[in-house]
Amino acid sequence: MSHSLRLRATLTAVRVNATSAPTAAFIVAALLCGVPASAPLAAQSGADVARAYREGHEAEIVRDFVELLSYPNRAFTPEIVRAAEYIRDQMRAAGVESELLELDGASPAVWGALNVGAARTLGIYVHYDGQPADPSNWTHPPFDPTLYTAPIPAGGEPIPLPQAGDEVDPEWRLYARSAGDDKAPIAAILPVLRSFREAGVQPTSNLVFFFDGEEEAGSPNLARYMEEYRDRFDPIDIWLFFDGPAHPSGRPQLTFGVRGAMGMEVTVYGASRNLHSGHYGNWAPDTGSILAHLLASMKDESGRVLIDGWYDGVDPIGDEEREALRAMPDWDGQLKRELGVVRTEGEPETLPERLLVPALNVRGITSGNTGRLARNVIPNTAVASLGIRLVKGNEPARLRQLVVDHIEAQGFHVVSEDPDLETRLRHPRIAKVTGGGGSRAARTSMANPFAQSVIQAARAAADRAFGAGSLVIAPGMGGTLPLTPFTEVLGKPAVIVPVANHDNNQHAPDENLRIANLWYAIDLYAALLTMPGPMS
Amino acid sequence: MSHSLRLRATLTAVRVNATSAPTAAFIVAALLCGVPASAPLAAQSGADVARAYREGHEAEIVRDFVELLSYPNRAFTPEIVRAAEYIRDQMRAAGVESELLELDGASPAVWGALNVGAARTLGIYVHYDGQPADPSNWTHPPFDPTLYTAPIPAGGEPIPLPQAGDEVDPEWRLYARSAGDDKAPIAAILPVLRSFREAGVQPTSNLVFFFDGEEEAGSPNLARYMEEYRDRFDPIDIWLFFDGPAHPSGRPQLTFGVRGAMGMEVTVYGASRNLHSGHYGNWAPDTGSILAHLLASMKDESGRVLIDGWYDGVDPIGDEEREALRAMPDWDGQLKRELGVVRTEGEPETLPERLLVPALNVRGITSGNTGRLARNVIPNTAVASLGIRLVKGNEPARLRQLVVDHIEAQGFHVVSEDPDLETRLRHPRIAKVTGGGGSRAARTSMANPFAQSVIQAARAAADRAFGAGSLVIAPGMGGTLPLTPFTEVLGKPAVIVPVANHDNNQHAPDENLRIANLWYAIDLYAALLTMPGPMS
Repeated sequence: MSHSLRLRATLTAVRVNATSAPTAAFIVAALLCGVPASAPLAAQSGADVARAYREGHEAEIVRDFVELLSYPNRAFTPEIVRAAEYIRDQMRAAGVESELLELDGASPAVWGALNVGAARTLGIYVHYDGQPADPSNWTHPPFDPTLYTAPIPAGGEPIPLPQAGDEVDPEWRLYARSAGDDKAPIAAILPVLRSFREAGVQPTSNLVFFFDGEEEAGSPNLARYMEEYRDRFDPIDIWLFFDGPAHPSGRPQLTFGVRGAMGMEVTVYGASRNLHSGHYGNWAPDTGSILAHLLASMKDESGRVLIDGWYDGVDPIGDEEREALRAMPDWDGQLKRELGVVRTEGEPETLPERLLVPALNVRGITSGNTGRLARNVIPNTAVASLGIRLVKGNEPARLRQLVVDHIEAQGFHVVSEDPDLETRLRHPRIAKVTGGGGSRAARTSMANPFAQSVIQAARAAADRAFGAGSLVIAPGMGGTLPLTPFTEVLGKPAVIVPVANHDNNQHAPDENLRIANLWYAIDLYAALLTMPGPMS
Repeated sequence: MSHSLRLRATLTAVRVNATSAPTAAFIVAALLCGVPASAPLAAQSGADVARAYREGHEAEIVRDFVELLSYPNRAFTPEIVRAAEYIRDQMRAAGVESELLELDGASPAVWGALNVGAARTLGIYVHYDGQPADPSNWTHPPFDPTLYTAPIPAGGEPIPLPQAGDEVDPEWRLYARSAGDDKAPIAAILPVLRSFREAGVQPTSNLVFFFDGEEEAGSPNLARYMEEYRDRFDPIDIWLFFDGPAHPSGRPQLTFGVRGAMGMEVTVYGASRNLHSGHYGNWAPDTGSILAHLLASMKDESGRVLIDGWYDGVDPIGDEEREALRAMPDWDGQLKRELGVVRTEGEPETLPERLLVPALNVRGITSGNTGRLARNVIPNTAVASLGIRLVKGNEPARLRQLVVDHIEAQGFHVVSEDPDLETRLRHPRIAKVTGGGGSRAARTSMANPFAQSVIQAARAAADRAFGAGSLVIAPGMGGTLPLTPFTEVLGKPAVIVPVANHDNNQHAPDENLRIANLWYAIDLYAALLTMPGPMS
């Protein structure tokens, strides 16, 4: 595209919304003064161009997001391919070279590239798959996106989708699986790319996109993708992870580390079949009680994990992380009020501090039934799903072994398959332990020069959207992203750039995105794509 | 029916199966000798007549049972009325006056009466409703009765229903909800009544039937039924409860008491919504762990309930009960081997001893999900359903209060509704306690003269079906039957007369009846209906 064409396109885009006066004024001034506008105009106006485009297309952007959210996206299901194809087609329509990457036994990944001949290459990671969703727990079906005037628990009411030109309230919420985790970045990057294309804005970095289709399943094939298609990813200088929620204060956030994650499951056994609680109650092993004693032995009532060696081997944090922790907003009190919590685990340590310590949680317990389905039986098994979060220094296999050792120390014979009768008759207490094999934690140095550019661009976008000094810089987030294939396979730094509202109910029913966070994502991505840096 | 007609009918019935030679020989001898046959013939041959009828109609009896089992029978559902009407019609066809009894808001009961002008009236209690059944846990749908060559876990194979005249293996199992609990008695009493009618055998007692449609829901309206229709039930001298399983040894059993039952549910609370286990793990209250500590505080690992006062107020057992306990088969070892259990609760006390002590069991726990549905959340609630079994002397309201007091003593604020945010912010630990209001235990003296007649008749039937001395007489069973409306409202004794195989999976998936136990029920009921006693 020629220089004059690009200028004309920029003006066209700007004209869409008359409130973008400063941008228009700048361009007019540039034209009148005869300033050679190409590099500085592109570099400085990317955010303005995207903002103007968004303001002129709010209803369309919301409707496109709704369409994106309507594609079921559970990893390893046949239908996820349709979601991948849709994203590929949208990327192509936005001017990005794109195709599906495939590996045997894997959900497809969507790859995209926009080579502008820059000296720097950004890797942009998004995952398009979502957590399983049980429709019976949702207010609306998880793939039937529904717009609300406010969060449902705050009295929000469902409303029809806006039509082109309608006003869009930034406090609206869009409810659907993956609205926050992690389709919002897709819904935001596409209008940025479209606006740049229309306005002739050139990114200051080459872009390589990777849309993961297996993140919620632990990205088991991500390292294989990185190895198999290494030539497409090797040029990347820094990975930007478009995933995760903003700071709970609502302030935007950058994060330099993630915890690892590991799921384990423990099943304890009673009699070889369910027994009538009347005929056998007081005599048959009470699986719920047995499991309760085991779980109670793992963590005390203050939240301290009692498993021997649990807190050993953790990499101590450095001065930079300590300083970042000190600068973080004191948000625990607010969060506790919001969540109705009087006493947190590990008090008086704060949430950001607790995220740098390995965690053991009960993700679920299943034994017999409760409520209307409760029956007069002594269930023959009780099952607990354990969610373990690792920090830097933790090896998944070691933590798994600590859990197994602990269970054995409580008098259980540990097995990996349901015990047969002979096994049952040899051991008074039996526990089946399955799962494990999770991911390690990762952390990128805040001093990395590419990371410094990212910090500056994000700070500018945050200052603009939320006010000066609003950006929160966190040494680590609690959640897990598959950083290790990048940090370990490719050896590249990675920074997490979240945009979703913190109360997006990710991984839970009624997941949602606050529209204002989608608008922030558009500002932020435009800033990151045009951040100062070496041009070819 | 005249005397000669009755004799002819008896001979017809006997002729159906040539193997009933002793009966036929007796009748022929009676005729030849000119013995006045009416009273003694009816009194002595009832069991033979029923046995002969069964042997001649085994396939038909099984097929009729299948039809009975195909009627869904969950209490308070609209469809249970069809089951009630079917039973009423079958009773009428067997010569018994029968109609539905109805009360506002109650499932219908089926009443039946056969007045033979006897001085004694037996009340026969059966319940035709069944436990809820979740088809996803069943090998076959619960109301699609399926015949097996043996128990499914022992390698039984499904087979087609027999046709009239086909041999029926007594080790076959019929799988369906309520096969054991409690439609088997209906399937057995109907052929007994039919055989008596065909053969002209007259019961030695007037009969009053009550088919309860709400037993598995705790028979909440049974006392109202007894009051509302008191004139129909007042003549009853002793109630026979056709319910419950035989002794686990396979030996037949009579039981003189039942435990009471009470269900309670405890819900503990974390944050006001599910939280991502990565972002909040180590900080958010871990509901699974909180519930585990609470449940572990209620019962120690040996099975001893730790709730203050739990074992107080229990009526001590008397000499007769102690003697009955001593005479009971030593079955614990066998039962443990069968059930794959090394260590029971309360060892070295035996199962019959443990049934005379109040029990606290975890019927179910629900929190988040496990297995394939496990997600990375910290569930905002964890729920335990508690099954409490009361013994004589326990008042339900008192035990409920002990549980509540215990929960409070563990530091919980106890509520009866889900807490609002204000309540959450006032209390670090909150537990919702619901349920309670269960039934008291009941026990009938073994010295009661009507009970003595029942013991003698049952002993004769047991001797014949299982060998001399096979009848087990138990002071109490572990399960619960709604005896108190009879013992307390009407003030009449009650004896439990179980027939189902002990491994019938009652209240659980894959409930089933062993055909041999159906044949025993026919022998037993015939003996009870013709047991010696005052005639009018």
